[in-house]
Amino acid sequence: MDIETANQTAVERMMSARPMLTGLAPARQVIPGMQDNLILHAGPPIEWDRMSGPLRGAVIGALLLEGLAKDEKSAISMVEAGEVDFAPCHHHNAVGPMAGAISASMEVYIIENPTHGNKAYSNLNEGYGKVLRYGAYSDEVLEKLRWMNGSMGPLLKEALERSDGLDIRALLAEALHMGDEGHNRNKAGSLIYLKLLSPLIAAVARDDALEAEVLQFLGDNALSVLNPVMAACKAMVDAAHGVEGSTLVTAMARNGTDFGIRVSGLGDDWFTAPAQIPDGLYFPSFTSEDANADIGDSTITETAGIGGFAMAAAPAIVAFVSGTPQDALNATLEMYEITVAEHEHFTIPPLDFRGTPTGVDIRKVVELGITPRINTGIAHREPGVGQVGAGLVRPPKEIFEQALIAYAERYEL
Amino acid sequence: MDIETANQTAVERMMSARPMLTGLAPARQVIPGMQDNLILHAGPPIEWDRMSGPLRGAVIGALLLEGLAKDEKSAISMVEAGEVDFAPCHHHNAVGPMAGAISASMEVYIIENPTHGNKAYSNLNEGYGKVLRYGAYSDEVLEKLRWMNGSMGPLLKEALERSDGLDIRALLAEALHMGDEGHNRNKAGSLIYLKLLSPLIAAVARDDALEAEVLQFLGDNALSVLNPVMAACKAMVDAAHGVEGSTLVTAMARNGTDFGIRVSGLGDDWFTAPAQIPDGLYFPSFTSEDANADIGDSTITETAGIGGFAMAAAPAIVAFVSGTPQDALNATLEMYEITVAEHEHFTIPPLDFRGTPTGVDIRKVVELGITPRINTGIAHREPGVGQVGAGLVRPPKEIFEQALIAYAERYEL
Repeated sequence: MDIETANQTAVERMMSARPMLTGLAPARQVIPGMQDNLILHAGPPIEWDRMSGPLRGAVIGALLLEGLAKDEKSAISMVEAGEVDFAPCHHHNAVGPMAGAISASMEVYIIENPTHGNKAYSNLNEGYGKVLRYGAYSDEVLEKLRWMNGSMGPLLKEALERSDGLDIRALLAEALHMGDEGHNRNKAGSLIYLKLLSPLIAAVARDDALEAEVLQFLGDNALSVLNPVMAACKAMVDAAHGVEGSTLVTAMARNGTDFGIRVSGLGDDWFTAPAQIPDGLYFPSFTSEDANADIGDSTITETAGIGGFAMAAAPAIVAFVSGTPQDALNATLEMYEITVAEHEHFTIPPLDFRGTPTGVDIRKVVELGITPRINTGIAHREPGVGQVGAGLVRPPKEIFEQALIAYAERYEL
Repeated sequence: MDIETANQTAVERMMSARPMLTGLAPARQVIPGMQDNLILHAGPPIEWDRMSGPLRGAVIGALLLEGLAKDEKSAISMVEAGEVDFAPCHHHNAVGPMAGAISASMEVYIIENPTHGNKAYSNLNEGYGKVLRYGAYSDEVLEKLRWMNGSMGPLLKEALERSDGLDIRALLAEALHMGDEGHNRNKAGSLIYLKLLSPLIAAVARDDALEAEVLQFLGDNALSVLNPVMAACKAMVDAAHGVEGSTLVTAMARNGTDFGIRVSGLGDDWFTAPAQIPDGLYFPSFTSEDANADIGDSTITETAGIGGFAMAAAPAIVAFVSGTPQDALNATLEMYEITVAEHEHFTIPPLDFRGTPTGVDIRKVVELGITPRINTGIAHREPGVGQVGAGLVRPPKEIFEQALIAYAERYEL
């Protein structure tokens, strides 16, 4: 078996995937295996007793949103009575930012990859302030979710039905030429998204006030496109998963307690270790003492060759995650060391349009001791508080070592 | 008299100007001195017999649009009979890209600078293909202009009336962090513009089809915001004009035949010399043989410290105007040599957020022999053809020498 060939096959599949945003639907209608008492979450598998504050908060919020619980106390009782099932979004072709809670009634984006025939899903982005993805579940949070589900979602769905699908790979390629890295900075991508949606929305909207509200909400939220982008990345990396003999990483995800990876040639196993506290800039009045350990499926972006790997395309991001523009260049240059390809579609103008470093090889990570660089938001460690900063983080080295040992066993090397 | 102090006063005025887009109106209603038989044009003053092909084409088109002439032949007869007056946009607080033709019935953007109380105007951007600003005047061109004037313009006007004005300086500051330089590349700025307008449009539009059409047109045109940006720059540099003793350039403009500059401390005189052929990338089937000499008021952007001066912010632009990302960095670094300030509001992430080089000092240009770097579109030399490429150009050195001699005479140095 030729590992290099297997990795080239895997990364070619990743790069040739063409994720198209084709619609929205309630999770229960489209996500395989979705159940009314199932809450999907970010990261590798975890049970309630090991969940961190923000993930618990998001679970409580999802149970309230679904009407399964009437208050925090009854939500916790339900969980403790074993009436709620949990599973990683990743086990259901889905991804969610931060806590990543997806419950049955939530409207989710549908991404289709016509190149390989797979699909992926993500929830809608809530914008800023108190939001479920950071573990907040006050009435204000639930009210916004209900508006997204009941008002914005149906309008977006109808608008998307008028399109032939939005090409998210093309959107990302353009956004990387406009100062985005596609993970923490999606300013340009969100505006391109608004540009694509707004004439469709205008054509279908029957309520001018709602239309104006939705356009304002999408336009004010520089993360509007993050969730479709994440689902697009999920569709790309899933296309690269399951290549016999490949040592490429096809998932990196954190549940707020553990950081986990999956490897193309190692089936559905997760390799996990405790997630770390990100290093970054904190909002006024917060410090690293307030920070939860690293959380969220948004590392799917780095897995697909953007985000922290495309920092060189996004020098302005350092004002948000710390560092200098030179650090941003260096971040990308470093990632070429542990990847197997330069992306065919995602290019970086300041590096003479070189393709982004794509396809992390666990062998290189272990050999060089260089772990992937990840941009991330930072959640407060208590449920219900929200975002406290943004910064940089790396996965624990030992998960790559575990994976490499498993690879050696599996392939009898 | 202290020249340095005068220049600091001028450049501070330029940078503290805060151009707000407050509305639209027909040129005859708002542009001072506008007349029904007056055609404003780009660049310094010029009469018909010296006008280049694209400018003549735009004049013919404007006369047809106004209904003053019924066809090309009668338009030319009118002009030759002396029935049409010409004046630079710059003489009427206005600017226009390329040919810059503004006639009485055209809807124009109104920019107000509350800091200094001055106003500036520009026409609406026509997008791509056959357009008046490149000297085309076919029925298709006139039809689009009529749609812009009769359908899009009134909708934009009504939308803007719901706002407190759009802060174009803030828009530019953000766009420079998103890979724009504000002259040839206005992708991000145009999307921010769409973001600001779309909820306002949604709230006022009564015709869903027109609304969808306008949002599509604005979104598809990566130069949508160029004209408001140019008028904003005009408002900024006009605030710096007329400072006794200042050697700062407050206008650079080309009419397709001559390149002209004005200087803050030298009143309304123009210093002119023949415009050059830009050096750039040509569209398929065109070469520099097809190119008209440099044309347009859009050099107002460089005059205000963006455009070619902010190339370092826009590495992706080299795919359009030629060169490498390193050339783009070098272009900005070179412009620091001939300017007196680093902009307080326009900063460049790849240069560690250094302010853009702002305020060209004619003394430095003459002393160092470094002329301003300008990004530009390239027009076909024949009327009616249109754009044939984009590239870089510099003003002729002698106009800075002329200006310096005039300065020495005026101030008896």
